[in-house]
Amino acid sequence: MTRLKTRPLLAACLLATMGSALAANDHGQGSPMLGFTAQGTSDQQSLEQRFDALLDPAEQREWLKLMSAEPNQVGSPHDKANAEFMLAKFREWGWDAHIETFDVLYPTPKKVALELQGPHPYTAKLHEPAVQGDATSGIEKDVLPPYNVYGGDGDVTAPLVYVNYGMPDDYKELARRGIDVRGKIVITRYGGGWRGLKPKLAQEHGAVGCLIYSDPRNDGYGAGDTYPDGGWRPADGVQRGSVADMQQYPGDPLTPGIGSTPDAKRLALKDAKTILKIPVLPISYADATPLLQSLTGDVAPAGWRGALPLTYHVGPSNAPVHLTVLSNWGQKPVYDVIATLKGSTEPDQWVVRGNHHDGWVFGAWDPLSGNVALLAEAKAIGTLYKQGWRPKRTLVYASWDGEEPGLLGSTEWAETHAKELQQKAVLYLNSDTNGHGFLNAGGSHSLQHLVNEVAAGVADPETKASVLDRMRARLLVDGNGKDARPSTKEDAAVAEKGGDVPIGALGSGSDFSAFLEHLGVASLDLGFGGENDSDGVYHSAYDSFDHYVRFGDPTFQYGVALSKVAGHIMLRTADASVVPLRFGDFSDTLDRYVAQLHKLIEDTRKDTDKQHKLLDSGAYALVVDPARPVQPPARDSDVGAVQLDPLDQAAKQLKQSAQAYEAAYNARAATGFDLPAAQLRELNALMAQMEQALSDQAGLPGRPWFKHMIYAPGLLTGYEVKTVPGVREALEARRWDEASQYATVTAKVLDRYRAQLDRLTAMLKKTS
Amino acid sequence: MTRLKTRPLLAACLLATMGSALAANDHGQGSPMLGFTAQGTSDQQSLEQRFDALLDPAEQREWLKLMSAEPNQVGSPHDKANAEFMLAKFREWGWDAHIETFDVLYPTPKKVALELQGPHPYTAKLHEPAVQGDATSGIEKDVLPPYNVYGGDGDVTAPLVYVNYGMPDDYKELARRGIDVRGKIVITRYGGGWRGLKPKLAQEHGAVGCLIYSDPRNDGYGAGDTYPDGGWRPADGVQRGSVADMQQYPGDPLTPGIGSTPDAKRLALKDAKTILKIPVLPISYADATPLLQSLTGDVAPAGWRGALPLTYHVGPSNAPVHLTVLSNWGQKPVYDVIATLKGSTEPDQWVVRGNHHDGWVFGAWDPLSGNVALLAEAKAIGTLYKQGWRPKRTLVYASWDGEEPGLLGSTEWAETHAKELQQKAVLYLNSDTNGHGFLNAGGSHSLQHLVNEVAAGVADPETKASVLDRMRARLLVDGNGKDARPSTKEDAAVAEKGGDVPIGALGSGSDFSAFLEHLGVASLDLGFGGENDSDGVYHSAYDSFDHYVRFGDPTFQYGVALSKVAGHIMLRTADASVVPLRFGDFSDTLDRYVAQLHKLIEDTRKDTDKQHKLLDSGAYALVVDPARPVQPPARDSDVGAVQLDPLDQAAKQLKQSAQAYEAAYNARAATGFDLPAAQLRELNALMAQMEQALSDQAGLPGRPWFKHMIYAPGLLTGYEVKTVPGVREALEARRWDEASQYATVTAKVLDRYRAQLDRLTAMLKKTS
Repeated sequence: MTRLKTRPLLAACLLATMGSALAANDHGQGSPMLGFTAQGTSDQQSLEQRFDALLDPAEQREWLKLMSAEPNQVGSPHDKANAEFMLAKFREWGWDAHIETFDVLYPTPKKVALELQGPHPYTAKLHEPAVQGDATSGIEKDVLPPYNVYGGDGDVTAPLVYVNYGMPDDYKELARRGIDVRGKIVITRYGGGWRGLKPKLAQEHGAVGCLIYSDPRNDGYGAGDTYPDGGWRPADGVQRGSVADMQQYPGDPLTPGIGSTPDAKRLALKDAKTILKIPVLPISYADATPLLQSLTGDVAPAGWRGALPLTYHVGPSNAPVHLTVLSNWGQKPVYDVIATLKGSTEPDQWVVRGNHHDGWVFGAWDPLSGNVALLAEAKAIGTLYKQGWRPKRTLVYASWDGEEPGLLGSTEWAETHAKELQQKAVLYLNSDTNGHGFLNAGGSHSLQHLVNEVAAGVADPETKASVLDRMRARLLVDGNGKDARPSTKEDAAVAEKGGDVPIGALGSGSDFSAFLEHLGVASLDLGFGGENDSDGVYHSAYDSFDHYVRFGDPTFQYGVALSKVAGHIMLRTADASVVPLRFGDFSDTLDRYVAQLHKLIEDTRKDTDKQHKLLDSGAYALVVDPARPVQPPARDSDVGAVQLDPLDQAAKQLKQSAQAYEAAYNARAATGFDLPAAQLRELNALMAQMEQALSDQAGLPGRPWFKHMIYAPGLLTGYEVKTVPGVREALEARRWDEASQYATVTAKVLDRYRAQLDRLTAMLKKTS
Repeated sequence: MTRLKTRPLLAACLLATMGSALAANDHGQGSPMLGFTAQGTSDQQSLEQRFDALLDPAEQREWLKLMSAEPNQVGSPHDKANAEFMLAKFREWGWDAHIETFDVLYPTPKKVALELQGPHPYTAKLHEPAVQGDATSGIEKDVLPPYNVYGGDGDVTAPLVYVNYGMPDDYKELARRGIDVRGKIVITRYGGGWRGLKPKLAQEHGAVGCLIYSDPRNDGYGAGDTYPDGGWRPADGVQRGSVADMQQYPGDPLTPGIGSTPDAKRLALKDAKTILKIPVLPISYADATPLLQSLTGDVAPAGWRGALPLTYHVGPSNAPVHLTVLSNWGQKPVYDVIATLKGSTEPDQWVVRGNHHDGWVFGAWDPLSGNVALLAEAKAIGTLYKQGWRPKRTLVYASWDGEEPGLLGSTEWAETHAKELQQKAVLYLNSDTNGHGFLNAGGSHSLQHLVNEVAAGVADPETKASVLDRMRARLLVDGNGKDARPSTKEDAAVAEKGGDVPIGALGSGSDFSAFLEHLGVASLDLGFGGENDSDGVYHSAYDSFDHYVRFGDPTFQYGVALSKVAGHIMLRTADASVVPLRFGDFSDTLDRYVAQLHKLIEDTRKDTDKQHKLLDSGAYALVVDPARPVQPPARDSDVGAVQLDPLDQAAKQLKQSAQAYEAAYNARAATGFDLPAAQLRELNALMAQMEQALSDQAGLPGRPWFKHMIYAPGLLTGYEVKTVPGVREALEARRWDEASQYATVTAKVLDRYRAQLDRLTAMLKKTS
């Protein structure tokens, strides 16, 4: 029965010693798969074996080489060629495929220049030269100069100030030192928060321009040997990237909430809220060095210092910096490749899989490594189809364009087909960059068990243990480490106590956003990593085939592993008798989030008391070094009353309903789901809508596009998730009334979710 | 009544808001000083005012300039000249002074060379060139090349391995990577533990040579602007220093435990346990760079990476390194200057003050900044004496020689006069480097209240608040910081709850060691700092007058403040009716130490369980990256039974006795200490012996020289203290039986201490 070569001794040890509930790993081997009868399980396992046997690493390598051979950013000839190549492939493999095109605002650099004036002038290179042994790095044709898309136009000359990561706390530190960035150009390093927040916050603080550089401490020789000796960022490497204010809404800046079809009503450029007003430019650490050397003023706080061989100062610079960024603000087409295999019995239930195909330059890691795994799945599924197998539900495979500038292709497609997707989509499964090491999985927690089941049945290429055992091992080791993050410790404790390995919650940064957060489609995001040096070439011209086959996945066995994990999830979701969701996992996770919110209030109260005491005592004033005066911190507001009771109640009731559902499901599963076809269909249709119940149509405060009340990208973190965002972000911003208000809003969607769950339970119980 | 210009508003705020017990600050203003009657307090305050008025910053500057004008290491002409200069001064000021000379083993470099061989050869400069604006940096006469005294002789050629800080955990990390240092030369960076441990541990692990360099991350441009732009270590700056195994015993390596008088029996060189066998050399980061660049192998773990612009590897190097260190193993004289003012009524009670006068090169910061404060006290006291004031107890002022190589002058003097000191010494008050900012005070906790009283009565030069208020403010701010060390948090909690600002416990690294840890004389160590850039020139040729007056104490107001704090402590101890000790403070501190030991056992048990579970689960094996294999950690031994009951009991009983003493003291103080003179004398004589009761004649395990059972330098930390060392170090080394054994030994000395305290209480209560 076992389809994988695990190392049974090790797996057994993991089970034996880390807690009984680790036995949860064991399902899928003997007991039926979630949503399947015993016979269905057996059939599905055979199907998956046949699927696995059709996966060929050599093909993934070939496709990757081809697709990354030329620059493939939005608007480039090779981007279109890649779409057409895939269209042909899907059709060859038996899929019903087409290209869906959207015209989106996509500015490209017209003039980009940067110079330091004064006694030690320096003109920035803003160029990534060829490196030895990297075939594509010498290509100049169609390569755009490094830039940050959706920054403002500008030609500014001003002193420079160093703002560390450019996050809110950094500006507080500067204020304590009497440094104001109004009228200045700021230089900030990558890290500490999403790229796009850096110029946004700089703009809000009055800066007239923003430079973002990669410090070698975390992204260069400080992390490891640089390319081509090793995989890490060389001195001239630049991280491109979008700086659209995607926390407002992703997609075409001119068509928020609607598809950018030819007849769509578009905003005027000046009214697009997600486009910045100030010029922004990403630079290499080679170019950053003379700029940082020009800074005077206080030595930067210890945590602000990178690995360049200089003393980091906060500024201002001893000479002005002249920055020019001018763009061509034109429309460009994005080409989404959409391929469909119609479901045999449930054609109106869609199981959707996506990965983007546009890169910043050659995009071998990001996104093509994930995209070729998706293609391999599609080819294998096509072969199974040709051999006579039919999915019960409809499979939709999509290769998105325009992800890099702002999730354009996926968002416009999802907005265009919103109604249909909300009626039909059961699952959206995303991938993006794929590397080697450990499976990283995030998504809707009702899908957590499915991920665990599938990961238990796929062998890790390096260790031959199951992918799940390796995930679990990493979590246990990391979570027990001295410097473990609280969330990792929490996850590890869950995994130790038993049960499934927790999956992460999703924020943003890839194409799941519109599906999950705008439409409420249950979603997953998958990829292998953790042993990569991928950061070193992220969004640079060195993200190439040659780099990937040295440092990414040389044998493409992890490409195959991703195809297996994603393919099995797709096939099971397509074929299951009952859509493979488990709501108790969501309920348990929600309990953790609610507990975190209580702790957040408690910690905030303690910290505020402490700060107020210290301020009142005059202690801060007494520790000031007159030679390097750092003023006391600004006084935090008092912590007001926050009413989380509705949330507590909703979570508690949900738990009971989830338990009742679980019992009803188990009882019905034991009968082999002996329900009338219409009743089963009704049940599955309602299951597909469950995640949507977690949406509130008014959306999150100030950003109505984001409707999911449990998962959202943080306003002040960017890609990183904020769970229960209405409440959590209000607490973090010290808006106590808003926190109470959104506790009620969130409780309402949870109550709706619970009511729907109770209906599912009733359907499972109902005997006709 | 107030002798100082505090900022009363701020002080009041500190009192009002941080807890009632902060009112403890307030004493000394209205209530009598510890050990004094009301009248005595008033007289003493007048005396201190007169003393303060005699302190002149200009004189300290002048003496500093003179004494740091030429190299003044042991054996140099200027070292002797400085001693003779001070002798003349003491005599001029009315003291009974002499120079006491000891002949000690003091090796000096005969040949020092370092080169990298192979394809990219490099010959190390090993030289600190002159820098602009630093007058003495151009001096070559009498300057020794940078070296580590008491390393072995050797001429070795071997591959190089990078061992981070060279501490035990670092070798464990190397072992997990399969790296062995046997037959290799190791390169280690300064920091993370005492210098001398680095070659000692390297030698124990089989290395044949050891290089120690200053990484610019914490000691160079990563910390701040380098000299002469700023105060931090320039690329060619080298930290010299002793690598004698002072955790065995300090002082002349050939005369452990006895004074190195002409007739003393000396060990043969080969039998001196504190001298290393392998060659050791300190180098600059300029010289370290090509060596680190030559390293191959794994990228060093994240925590091992410094601020040089290269990828840190663990090694081995791609070419051999050739290291030569040969010394002249001769005797050199050390010149201790000893000055005495005889006590009027208690000539056989000695209050001893010391600071060393030998430096590594010019020694402006270290040690002369503290030494000139001591001289200023002596001059002022001499003037008071000439004006007719007489100390009740005898004052002994000492300026030690040979501290840098191994506390030679102080240790030999203390060993020579051991018997007399144990009979007569009431207090040893040490200082060393003095900077600006905050008073750092460490010592016997029975002296904690005296330090607080005195610090409350001296104004901080920068803020005009009291020195104590500023200490307290720093502790509150630091202790409430996110990254506060547990001990700082603990101290802050104590200070917040009320009462005195805790003083630190003493380990080693300056001249108090023989007094406190060998003889059991209650000791203090004082100095201002916390706003310095002193680390940047520590033990280098750039520790100069010019550096000090820019970055140390430009106005010498902190020199004056140190004179005031130290001077007041000396005068009060000399004049008090009852020796100003408070034993409840010691008892409270002991309780904290005992609680720490319990927590250490508990934490060790938890960590061990966790590690065993992880090892048994096979999780470590599953997280190994095959491309960069890091083996699971070695299995920690099981935690055995440890019996701390005797210690718990002793601490509990001591608390009761301390409370009884306090009550008796207060009652007697209220009567103005109306005891017969003989009884008071007996009381004071016994008080002077209290600290000695904390010694055990057998000493600590394996190092009998260290007899104090509460404070010792850590065997594996060097300068840093280990409190209750017999127990704590046994626990840390996982020697469970030894921990139980030393809990009993420590309990015994505590019981003796308590019995002696009960006798004091009885004496205070006794009515004749």
